[in-house]
Amino acid sequence: MMDKPKDIQPWETVSSEYLIKRPWLTARRDVLRMPDGKIVPEYYVLEYPTWVNIIAITTEGEFVLVRQYRHALGIVEYELCAGTMEASDASPLDAAKRELLEETGYAGGEWTELTALSANPTSMNNLNHTFIAKGVEKVAGQNLDETEEISVHLFKTDELIDLLRHDEMKQSLMVAPLWRYIAENHLI
Amino acid sequence: MMDKPKDIQPWETVSSEYLIKRPWLTARRDVLRMPDGKIVPEYYVLEYPTWVNIIAITTEGEFVLVRQYRHALGIVEYELCAGTMEASDASPLDAAKRELLEETGYAGGEWTELTALSANPTSMNNLNHTFIAKGVEKVAGQNLDETEEISVHLFKTDELIDLLRHDEMKQSLMVAPLWRYIAENHLI
Repeated sequence: MMDKPKDIQPWETVSSEYLIKRPWLTARRDVLRMPDGKIVPEYYVLEYPTWVNIIAITTEGEFVLVRQYRHALGIVEYELCAGTMEASDASPLDAAKRELLEETGYAGGEWTELTALSANPTSMNNLNHTFIAKGVEKVAGQNLDETEEISVHLFKTDELIDLLRHDEMKQSLMVAPLWRYIAENHLI
Repeated sequence: MMDKPKDIQPWETVSSEYLIKRPWLTARRDVLRMPDGKIVPEYYVLEYPTWVNIIAITTEGEFVLVRQYRHALGIVEYELCAGTMEASDASPLDAAKRELLEETGYAGGEWTELTALSANPTSMNNLNHTFIAKGVEKVAGQNLDETEEISVHLFKTDELIDLLRHDEMKQSLMVAPLWRYIAENHLI
């Protein structure tokens, strides 16, 4: 019998230098040593805080989506309500409840965490936590940041599936947990 | 009847300046004007080429996954075979066929495009195209780049679903099309 092959090993950081540290972009350049000794002279890591997004479902069974302009891709897109964990948030769950209330005015319901994923573990050091909030209700108006312009929309299950099937929601950190929710709850 | 509210509008680019242009990191800072006239003085966009990944399924019905170290998150992870479209690739499909052969040695089968998603349309300007390749076969060894260290693994459907349910695959550009494939083919 052959020996079991050795698993892939982490690489070693030889040195690390920040290129930029701003609230919306923190980038560093690492020099890495691979397990076989080869040097990778230029490996870029983007540092971000923990992100959250929410599959919010109303007491009537409709999905609460937001619509906003996404400049890098140049599209206006339907998305899950989402945001960044702040120093004042005790947990990703707290951040998610705060973001849902601020962006949509919806709150309440039963909250569970579905998944924690990465937009790109090659270059980004953070995770995005997705929560399911079942039975939310509109309790307030929106309370947006200076540079947020967001409209709120309710989608029935078949409308949401149609949106996903046509790639009209493109943000994979939102699309992944939604298809998981659809698969695990046998909605198609 | 009330007028239909005006849809969310794109923002205008006032000026744009590159911070860094390297093969693995191209970043620019845009100054934007919002529809209400407000100026966003510092909006960062990361430019990337088109990406591809492949849901490759063997003639025996097993999923071809790869395993590699992902430095930004510091994890060794199972992933779909994936890569970047190069100047010599005539299309994303060509890039996907080339990457599958190089990284895994598998080729052939019936290819269809499933979806095109964004890791983050807020900050990244590219799309990732996911292809389904049904009935691939091992035709060659691996042909890796200098700084690639990749092992190849075959997963049965229930093993793949178990991996996804435990967030052991974290890359959302891979998780999203896999859950879509599972949902649309009623695999759970």
